[in-house]
Amino acid sequence: MERLQGIAVSPGVAIGEALVLDNEGFRIPRRFLPRDAVEEELDRLHKALESATSEVERNRDRVAAELGDEYAAIFSAHLQMMRDKRLHEEVEELIRTRHYSPEYAVSRSLRKYAKIFESLDGEYMAERANDIFDIEKRILRNLLGMRREELSQVTSPVLVLARNLTPSETANLNPQFVMGMVTEVGGPGSHTAIVAEGLGIPAVVGVGLFLTDVSGGDTVIIDGDQGQIILNPDEETLARYRHEVEEQRSLAAKLETLRELPAITTDGQVVQLLGNIEFPHEVTQCLERGADGIGLYRTEFLYLGREDDPSEDTHYEAYSGVAKAMGDKPVVVRTLDLGADKMRMLPNPEDERNPFLGLRSIRLALRNRDLFRTQLRAILRASVHGNIRLMFPLISTMLEFRQAKMVLADAMEDLEEAGVPFDRDIKVGMMVEVPSAVVMMDRFVEVADFFSIGTNDLVQYCLAVDRSNKDVANLYTAADPAVLRLIRDTVNAAKAADRPVSMCGQMCGNPMYTMLLLGLGLRSMSVTPAAVPEIKRVCRSVSIAQCEAIAQHVMTLENARDIKTYLRDELSGVFPELPV
Amino acid sequence: MERLQGIAVSPGVAIGEALVLDNEGFRIPRRFLPRDAVEEELDRLHKALESATSEVERNRDRVAAELGDEYAAIFSAHLQMMRDKRLHEEVEELIRTRHYSPEYAVSRSLRKYAKIFESLDGEYMAERANDIFDIEKRILRNLLGMRREELSQVTSPVLVLARNLTPSETANLNPQFVMGMVTEVGGPGSHTAIVAEGLGIPAVVGVGLFLTDVSGGDTVIIDGDQGQIILNPDEETLARYRHEVEEQRSLAAKLETLRELPAITTDGQVVQLLGNIEFPHEVTQCLERGADGIGLYRTEFLYLGREDDPSEDTHYEAYSGVAKAMGDKPVVVRTLDLGADKMRMLPNPEDERNPFLGLRSIRLALRNRDLFRTQLRAILRASVHGNIRLMFPLISTMLEFRQAKMVLADAMEDLEEAGVPFDRDIKVGMMVEVPSAVVMMDRFVEVADFFSIGTNDLVQYCLAVDRSNKDVANLYTAADPAVLRLIRDTVNAAKAADRPVSMCGQMCGNPMYTMLLLGLGLRSMSVTPAAVPEIKRVCRSVSIAQCEAIAQHVMTLENARDIKTYLRDELSGVFPELPV
Repeated sequence: MERLQGIAVSPGVAIGEALVLDNEGFRIPRRFLPRDAVEEELDRLHKALESATSEVERNRDRVAAELGDEYAAIFSAHLQMMRDKRLHEEVEELIRTRHYSPEYAVSRSLRKYAKIFESLDGEYMAERANDIFDIEKRILRNLLGMRREELSQVTSPVLVLARNLTPSETANLNPQFVMGMVTEVGGPGSHTAIVAEGLGIPAVVGVGLFLTDVSGGDTVIIDGDQGQIILNPDEETLARYRHEVEEQRSLAAKLETLRELPAITTDGQVVQLLGNIEFPHEVTQCLERGADGIGLYRTEFLYLGREDDPSEDTHYEAYSGVAKAMGDKPVVVRTLDLGADKMRMLPNPEDERNPFLGLRSIRLALRNRDLFRTQLRAILRASVHGNIRLMFPLISTMLEFRQAKMVLADAMEDLEEAGVPFDRDIKVGMMVEVPSAVVMMDRFVEVADFFSIGTNDLVQYCLAVDRSNKDVANLYTAADPAVLRLIRDTVNAAKAADRPVSMCGQMCGNPMYTMLLLGLGLRSMSVTPAAVPEIKRVCRSVSIAQCEAIAQHVMTLENARDIKTYLRDELSGVFPELPV
Repeated sequence: MERLQGIAVSPGVAIGEALVLDNEGFRIPRRFLPRDAVEEELDRLHKALESATSEVERNRDRVAAELGDEYAAIFSAHLQMMRDKRLHEEVEELIRTRHYSPEYAVSRSLRKYAKIFESLDGEYMAERANDIFDIEKRILRNLLGMRREELSQVTSPVLVLARNLTPSETANLNPQFVMGMVTEVGGPGSHTAIVAEGLGIPAVVGVGLFLTDVSGGDTVIIDGDQGQIILNPDEETLARYRHEVEEQRSLAAKLETLRELPAITTDGQVVQLLGNIEFPHEVTQCLERGADGIGLYRTEFLYLGREDDPSEDTHYEAYSGVAKAMGDKPVVVRTLDLGADKMRMLPNPEDERNPFLGLRSIRLALRNRDLFRTQLRAILRASVHGNIRLMFPLISTMLEFRQAKMVLADAMEDLEEAGVPFDRDIKVGMMVEVPSAVVMMDRFVEVADFFSIGTNDLVQYCLAVDRSNKDVANLYTAADPAVLRLIRDTVNAAKAADRPVSMCGQMCGNPMYTMLLLGLGLRSMSVTPAAVPEIKRVCRSVSIAQCEAIAQHVMTLENARDIKTYLRDELSGVFPELPV
């Protein structure tokens, strides 16, 4: 048994079999082979080596033809390494005697050689280790190509353990079978955290190097409440956690009964509870959990992993489907909120040293007007099928908002001319997630129809903390008093001008903050669908007066630690069984 | 003649000979060789090829001994390329017929081969281009090693043209001979901009790719007012700009007469004008320009480019020298304000995707207590030699400030026990450069003795804009109304609590903002020494009433563009000759 501490980013407990992903997104099982599979696996190894070798031979021949033999020599060098008898013997030995999978055996042997290169003096020598990694990748690609275990083809429940999870990797995971996630790097607010929370599964990030200690198939416990993972737990630990999982289930069942009930406080204040979604199919979850609408429809999935610009119809299908499914209920569609590095159809900008402070989101949209107009046209066209609202992300100046509105006005004019129907009175709002937006709220209320506070980015910029950097994770918290003041000011400014204001960051999906947010005057929250019942339950159990007293006290506290302790105490006074 | 537009980051005009730095910091002159130098240069080429070849041979032999011949083959492949007859002939031909320098000829020929590799399909083939770059680097290193033209050994005035300038590169430049800077990348607030401003020389950044169009020795004009550079200007253009340079000189002479006069407004308000310095020798400049003290003594130079931690005595010498030179005048020493990536003596943290939102500055100091304590002890010891104050950078929470004070208290206790004298009442202040610090000013006034607004970072975090990223340079401006509100709030909060507040960002070195800042209530500014006379002149020509009217009007404007236009108009009304 080994217990490791990381950062808790999505609550709950999961117990299951480990699926280990290596850096390249390959699945390299260290699982031991059954004795009778050895010959078959050796055969697979030889075939992979053969095809990898002939690939390199082909490359060598092409280069020799184009550039001459001197330049083809680099490939011959790779070939020599790949044909090294000693290497083959070593790998075979590991498969035969230790019953390693060929993937694991190849990886292990070659990395030993790479280490020796790296240990030799000088940059030039160290860089040569990359040649070994290239060879490793090539052989693995050939091995896995023959028995590729696509992430999306996982067919039994697993816990995903990885160095890091990229958006495209998580997009490939079948959520039905992923019961928890752990990553070596990352912090609260990392992509892994957001996805896990969206799926409502426990996750721990920033654990540090540990993948070498775990094999595919090992039993692992993810404790998303305490931020711990336990490798190969003993029977006692296993029993204790199994009991906890049982309790979670019964709590979930209790919450289930709230579906048809409104989110209303004990003193009669109705709270609007909306869902955040990423993919159209999540609409079902929102409806099942009793959400009052979609407070944040992220549209990034339409752009990810594509070589070309998604067509207007692709956008339209996605938006109108959701609008129809939600009927009268509001659906807030947020326009493109990505960095250029994620969008292959755009020319890559100058390498950005600080992408979170770079050309992304609305800035990128305003620089790529055609792309932006396509999306806006599709949203407008879909607006006749339901109650669609439109929201611009990362607005930091009035000028940006005005420019975005102008592009929208153009799109409207085009549709008008073409006789295409759309909602002429579509509400146009903005995310409040950059400090300047908070500071200028008295101006923004003049131009925006509604606001949604994005706490993830707001915390990040307010405190100058990258939310996915574990080295500064101690500073990244929505409980920081400066963040709370910005939230309070935003809510007050919107209310003073009679403009609706909601919140769609991770903060409002955490029951610890519900009473505080109600006390600060927030009356609308958009959360991950899985969190709707829990937040609803808190709303239904407290009075606004009680919440205001809590908020008043919180605003006197000096630091996030004290604030969190106080909020946890208050919540556990109301709901002893909620994990906070 | 070729005219290129970039971003103006440091004003003035410079005319001179180009010094072109390539990506690696090598100086690769495309300068044509004199006819009689050809044989000598060919000889230099052959010697460099020989020594590069024998280096690789040594590497090959070592690897063969340690890992076996199969793994040494990679080096043999490099050798084959380096010995390629066709390559040698090509390079020699370029030197003989086109009179290219050997460096340029080697680089050009090898890059042609690399391009062919890169154009071949597939990642694996493209990666092999790196082998060619390795070979290029190795040969260049050998060529330049024999005739290394150290940047610090430039002995005649030049304009530095580079892809980018890193802190260690600029540290190597002899400021005496650098008359202007141009970079392909970067934005306002990039390192190049700060250094150029500090030196008081014109600079233009973010020009885009242009280095291929210019040869070392070409005549270049840098127009730091318009953000333009002109390559190989025609006679008429040259004459016009020469005239402008003359005018600048006569303005500078006029300003010179202000040295002994106080910075006092026409209605009798005294303004404190301090200097920002990086290196101890800049004290002289501060005194010559008539600064009232040092408002920002950056201490990063002590850490840059070192393999080991600078000793307490190294710190002490630097601080006490400056303190003594300044006599009674205040010297504000800012503690370490770097990211870990810049400090080789620290273990590198997890690769940071957003270093500006990462483990840097006070965060890094609090994580490396020994390093921090060493600096604090040295500052304390130096405090008996003058009027030293201590300032913590990048404070974002109260907890951080308290923690930093605790480390200081420890250091004081140690010195006390050891009987080492120091100023027990040393004032301890903080930079206000993170939005949360502004938001919490009413709390920070309880613990900090004084404040200094760092506009460079504040703009960056307030608007979520990396100041060195040219793709978002349009958003990066201190004239943004949200930034101005944060400045106003900081000044007001400090004044309400009777705490001194100054500003040390680039904003207050720009005369365009002087009247506005006075109007917002600021009475102390710390600027680059070169800017002291100009800012003093503005202060001495305006009344506070006039400034307050300007500030009041500015605060009604909606966007930075309007604000800048208005401020420029106001300033040119007062000083038609100042470039704004």
